[in-house]
Amino acid sequence: MKAVVAAHGAVKVVDRPRPVRPGEALVRVRLAGLCGTDLEIVRGYAGFRGILGHEFVGVVEESESATWVGCRVVGEINVGCGSCSWCRGGLERHCPERTVLGIVGRDGAFAEWLTLPERNLHEVPEAVPDEAAVLTEPLAAAYEILEQTRPEPGTRVLVVGDGRLGQLCAAALHRAGCRVTVRGKHRAKLARLERLGLETRMIDARSERAFDLVVEATGRPAGLRDALAHSRPRGTIVLKSTYHGEHGANLTALVVDEVTLVGSRCGPFPPALRHLTEHPEDVEGLVSARFPLERATEAFAAAMQPGSLKVLLEP
Amino acid sequence: MKAVVAAHGAVKVVDRPRPVRPGEALVRVRLAGLCGTDLEIVRGYAGFRGILGHEFVGVVEESESATWVGCRVVGEINVGCGSCSWCRGGLERHCPERTVLGIVGRDGAFAEWLTLPERNLHEVPEAVPDEAAVLTEPLAAAYEILEQTRPEPGTRVLVVGDGRLGQLCAAALHRAGCRVTVRGKHRAKLARLERLGLETRMIDARSERAFDLVVEATGRPAGLRDALAHSRPRGTIVLKSTYHGEHGANLTALVVDEVTLVGSRCGPFPPALRHLTEHPEDVEGLVSARFPLERATEAFAAAMQPGSLKVLLEP
Repeated sequence: MKAVVAAHGAVKVVDRPRPVRPGEALVRVRLAGLCGTDLEIVRGYAGFRGILGHEFVGVVEESESATWVGCRVVGEINVGCGSCSWCRGGLERHCPERTVLGIVGRDGAFAEWLTLPERNLHEVPEAVPDEAAVLTEPLAAAYEILEQTRPEPGTRVLVVGDGRLGQLCAAALHRAGCRVTVRGKHRAKLARLERLGLETRMIDARSERAFDLVVEATGRPAGLRDALAHSRPRGTIVLKSTYHGEHGANLTALVVDEVTLVGSRCGPFPPALRHLTEHPEDVEGLVSARFPLERATEAFAAAMQPGSLKVLLEP
Repeated sequence: MKAVVAAHGAVKVVDRPRPVRPGEALVRVRLAGLCGTDLEIVRGYAGFRGILGHEFVGVVEESESATWVGCRVVGEINVGCGSCSWCRGGLERHCPERTVLGIVGRDGAFAEWLTLPERNLHEVPEAVPDEAAVLTEPLAAAYEILEQTRPEPGTRVLVVGDGRLGQLCAAALHRAGCRVTVRGKHRAKLARLERLGLETRMIDARSERAFDLVVEATGRPAGLRDALAHSRPRGTIVLKSTYHGEHGANLTALVVDEVTLVGSRCGPFPPALRHLTEHPEDVEGLVSARFPLERATEAFAAAMQPGSLKVLLEP
């Protein structure tokens, strides 16, 4: 089958055998999404050498339980050992022995097929089209913010970053009743958010240390500095970006103002799928380009364009 | 009166008028303690140009309420405006208009006299000697960790840093029922903690990502890196150090392992005074040198020695 791997700071399309993992479901990928983490892996993050990609929607072709076969599914990307205290407590995404689809020790979704255990799969409701379903994984990551910080309705939230993940974080927090402002660099991306009823600010607007909760979703080291400049004393910053290299921030303001910084990664799929069912308008216009898998190099170049939002690959 | 100020990267003893602030108590300083923050101010932190010092014990000589006169006191160092929402909520240490004794807009304790509002003062119980009472302010900062994180008894805590503040943090967490280990560089400092029943590790011991709560009290940028190397996934790191310059840490582990980083500054005086009354042994041996105010330059040099603990000035 065709598959996409990282090689020497770029990506290439290679031919690989169809994957087989005993006890796992075989999923034919219908659409896969490019994420900032994929771009970082190509730059050297996580030292991963397998097939890239962790956001997908597909159809189960083979599985131990016949009920799964033929289902349209999305999949949680962390696969734990199943027996440690993390796995037993329902947090296999923190299992120290875990593999992670397209990131750690497990081939990913930029391919014609992938495998995942059945317990990782979620059936996609009929009302949710593929182009929305493929956003379940990053939207679940946005829902992780709600799980971790449980903001009251009316909480003043700033999302720093108007890109792929920032847009989804803003939507999740908005639907939870927060008063959300998004700070970004791109008029078109901010305009999309304004249409959903959110407040926006250009990056050159004066900073104001007034937000209860600040979500850093820029994918760049400067994002943390910007977040610190907007958190009120005793506020909370959620850090979403992972990248290759150091965050060179001065954390004195964090100490003096007793700000809490919460690292946040993968999140729960069920509320994300509910969101996509109930508010399809929140993801309209989020896909900025779609490429066949063979043209992965162009897809990665498109995803790196400052103006782009979600770029999809179609095997 | 004699007083100590920072000048061109060093300290000097100057002559200043006795302080007068309408509505505030006049306190004759009996002992004052040097803190890492004082050393950082001399290096340029906070841009402060007044009389240094914020840890003290003294006696009220003049005050509006006669009941305070003659009392031996310690004092909270943040003075708020008294009318904003922070001040009204009992958190004047976060008032945006606050002055801070010896740090922001208010002359400090390395002098013969200082002034503070009566509401900042706490009477020292008779059983607590001056050499212990002078540690109330940094011990209160240690109690802030308990206020912010409320650890369950049995929580596995690592304190990174065996210096002045690390010793007090370890004592506060130990008395709260946590299982405390201290990681440090100085055999003598660690030996002091072992006598109190704490576990210790030299800095070159293998790191282990196993602690529920890690307190960073090193005063150095490398402390955060060390703390990150010891927090378990979903653990909490309390950041205590403020210094001039950047924390060059790679926060990817914070995001991937969903660690929470809590900035922590000043804390509540009453539990600190109770601790000093009930467990005087916890601060025995913490004072490593005592100098008359005139010899402030020597005192600062002594406090910068790697082996030193608390250095005191006596006006």
